[in-house]
Amino acid sequence: MQPTGLVTLTTDFGQFDGYAAVLKGVILTINPQAQPLDFTHQIEPQNVAQAAYLLHTGYRYFPSGSVHLIVVDPGVGSDRKAIALATPEYAFVAPDNGVLTYVWDAAVARWGRDKLTLVELDNPRWWRPDISTTFHGRDIFAPVAAHLAAGVNITELGRPLDELVRLPLKQPAQRPDGRWEGHIVHVDRFGNCITSFTREFLNDVGSDESIEVHILDQRINNICRTYGDSEWGMVMALIGSSGRLELAVRNGNAAQLLGVGVGDSLRISTRQKSGR
Amino acid sequence: MQPTGLVTLTTDFGQFDGYAAVLKGVILTINPQAQPLDFTHQIEPQNVAQAAYLLHTGYRYFPSGSVHLIVVDPGVGSDRKAIALATPEYAFVAPDNGVLTYVWDAAVARWGRDKLTLVELDNPRWWRPDISTTFHGRDIFAPVAAHLAAGVNITELGRPLDELVRLPLKQPAQRPDGRWEGHIVHVDRFGNCITSFTREFLNDVGSDESIEVHILDQRINNICRTYGDSEWGMVMALIGSSGRLELAVRNGNAAQLLGVGVGDSLRISTRQKSGR
Amino acid sequence: MQPTGLVTLTTDFGQFDGYAAVLKGVILTINPQAQPLDFTHQIEPQNVAQAAYLLHTGYRYFPSGSVHLIVVDPGVGSDRKAIALATPEYAFVAPDNGVLTYVWDAAVARWGRDKLTLVELDNPRWWRPDISTTFHGRDIFAPVAAHLAAGVNITELGRPLDELVRLPLKQPAQRPDGRWEGHIVHVDRFGNCITSFTREFLNDVGSDESIEVHILDQRINNICRTYGDSEWGMVMALIGSSGRLELAVRNGNAAQLLGVGVGDSLRISTRQKSGR
Repeated sequence: MQPTGLVTLTTDFGQFDGYAAVLKGVILTINPQAQPLDFTHQIEPQNVAQAAYLLHTGYRYFPSGSVHLIVVDPGVGSDRKAIALATPEYAFVAPDNGVLTYVWDAAVARWGRDKLTLVELDNPRWWRPDISTTFHGRDIFAPVAAHLAAGVNITELGRPLDELVRLPLKQPAQRPDGRWEGHIVHVDRFGNCITSFTREFLNDVGSDESIEVHILDQRINNICRTYGDSEWGMVMALIGSSGRLELAVRNGNAAQLLGVGVGDSLRISTRQKSGR
Repeated sequence: MQPTGLVTLTTDFGQFDGYAAVLKGVILTINPQAQPLDFTHQIEPQNVAQAAYLLHTGYRYFPSGSVHLIVVDPGVGSDRKAIALATPEYAFVAPDNGVLTYVWDAAVARWGRDKLTLVELDNPRWWRPDISTTFHGRDIFAPVAAHLAAGVNITELGRPLDELVRLPLKQPAQRPDGRWEGHIVHVDRFGNCITSFTREFLNDVGSDESIEVHILDQRINNICRTYGDSEWGMVMALIGSSGRLELAVRNGNAAQLLGVGVGDSLRISTRQKSGR
Repeated sequence: MQPTGLVTLTTDFGQFDGYAAVLKGVILTINPQAQPLDFTHQIEPQNVAQAAYLLHTGYRYFPSGSVHLIVVDPGVGSDRKAIALATPEYAFVAPDNGVLTYVWDAAVARWGRDKLTLVELDNPRWWRPDISTTFHGRDIFAPVAAHLAAGVNITELGRPLDELVRLPLKQPAQRPDGRWEGHIVHVDRFGNCITSFTREFLNDVGSDESIEVHILDQRINNICRTYGDSEWGMVMALIGSSGRLELAVRNGNAAQLLGVGVGDSLRISTRQKSGR
């Protein structure tokens, strides 16, 4: 990976306390050519799974050569590792707590394990001189990201690792009645409920427009192409911009209307498409 | 317009999901020299009128040559047009849903219609290769803004348009009792209630300090020059930083104190200034 | 101070109305090489003490040569002064309302008063031509910061001042029973309660691990090194990343759990360390 200087930041710091800004200050102090850019700081405190999912939906839209810095770190100061991962396109710096699960899977699928470099950040040469026990984002992760963005080779950051900590990702499962059960992985600002059913999965099980969605005691067969295709106030299902089945309400909030949230299950029944 | 690379972003995406960051990633991927800059991402979901007003209050403070990108797009995926507007100072990229109403009026007034270029974004050459049905911000608007900021001529983006969609802007109206009726167009973070009465309007009707404001059953004749001129806890009226009459409370929240919000009406009675 | 072009922004504007963005637009219009960077815009409206504290915890992590712009300005339009302060490392531009109290004290302690330059911003040459009565951030402070970041000497901005307005900072005080009384100076996004007891203070009074904290009717002797050292759900005390005693709950919210907030008092009892 040839760094461009761009460093994206994904944290659960919010934007009130100045913690996120301090990461940028540290990066620019080490590497004045760096270009820090907020991905999100609104991850719920300590919600590693949420950070993992959101990072996954966005990182690929940044220029090749970007460094993605993630600091959602409930284990700060414990013996959880700090890691960096480089693919031929991007580098990632994060605590080893599962936050790179989706990224890792996608990278292995795309490039093969051999093309990836995974290291433990155990070389203090690239850290700030004083390491606090509670803010490794400032003292370890941001400095390392700054150095990576300046061209330091990932292999200099620490010893190679074979694998990283993974979150258990629940895949859709078929039930005795033939329906597939999945769950809501994210509710976005608009109340759109994004599910664990990917476009690829729906294609594989032989359906896309021809499905019915069951959630709580509701049946949704209002399958749309875009938000504007539905009547107002009616829950629709569509493939959203992240390539996943989502439940939405035109100019409304599906999560509120349905009374559902992240983790809630839903089922789809598929019908074979008729002929060609 | 000679672009500087600056691209401001106005959306209803919030800053949680990474959607706003993805716009910047897309822009920087196409145009690494671009300088994306958040104007606001806190527009209420689908509130085109709010975006139109806020954009209007702020765009002129950016360097000449800035591209203003607006993605508040309830009609995404429908047949609403995507447009770009260039004035001799700025370019604007937005859905054609009225969000440029104030900007257009101001540009026509300042430069004349002949100096403005308005096009429909119908040339896919400047878009991302895959266009989703639900996120044209990422797939169409941001790429076009990136190209404009890189110097692509607006006329290459698509066919010329004569006009754009306009929001109906309610102007102050005189009532039988001689009072002028207007409304609250915006409530800001401080609870200041900004109204449809502009400084120019108040000058035209022959008043400024010499007015009384009536809202709900309250009469406000505490007309001030700045917030600190009023006693604490007392609603004042003043010409705010956007050049409009606003209701405010020193170190307090006028909207909460009065129990009013956007769209609520107020009336002013004017007294002719006495002689010279 | 040799400016780098970096300008950090600390305001109570939020990120909804575009006010914070306008500051950046003004800065970039005057100084296209400037690099405006949000420190925080989430200061509570008019909360000068909060801004003073947060600025203090963060400013030193930015590159030497940064200009720190602070606009928390309840006295806008009154006769409160506008000031700029330069240390050998940084410059600060702010209303003279106490927001620089901590910064000033730290700078005097580190550099000595002689190395500091403090001026009143009374030279309109560096302002926008039209000065509103309600938005000096846009019309005075941001322009001045832009010029400072472009290399204008602080002495050109206005007449020298001997001193600035200070907030009364409450120091820990010893009670008749020997305990030290302090208070909560900040509650961060995670609910961590940061107190007026600094590491230096605790060292001076001869304690660090060997303390007990008393708050409301609770006694906290769960003294930890980092968040992960404590059991879940149990309030701990530790020295946080800002070098102050803080109360925290592992993966929880100490402020909510305790029912406390900024300004609430707490007491520590110290035990002399045994041995040398």
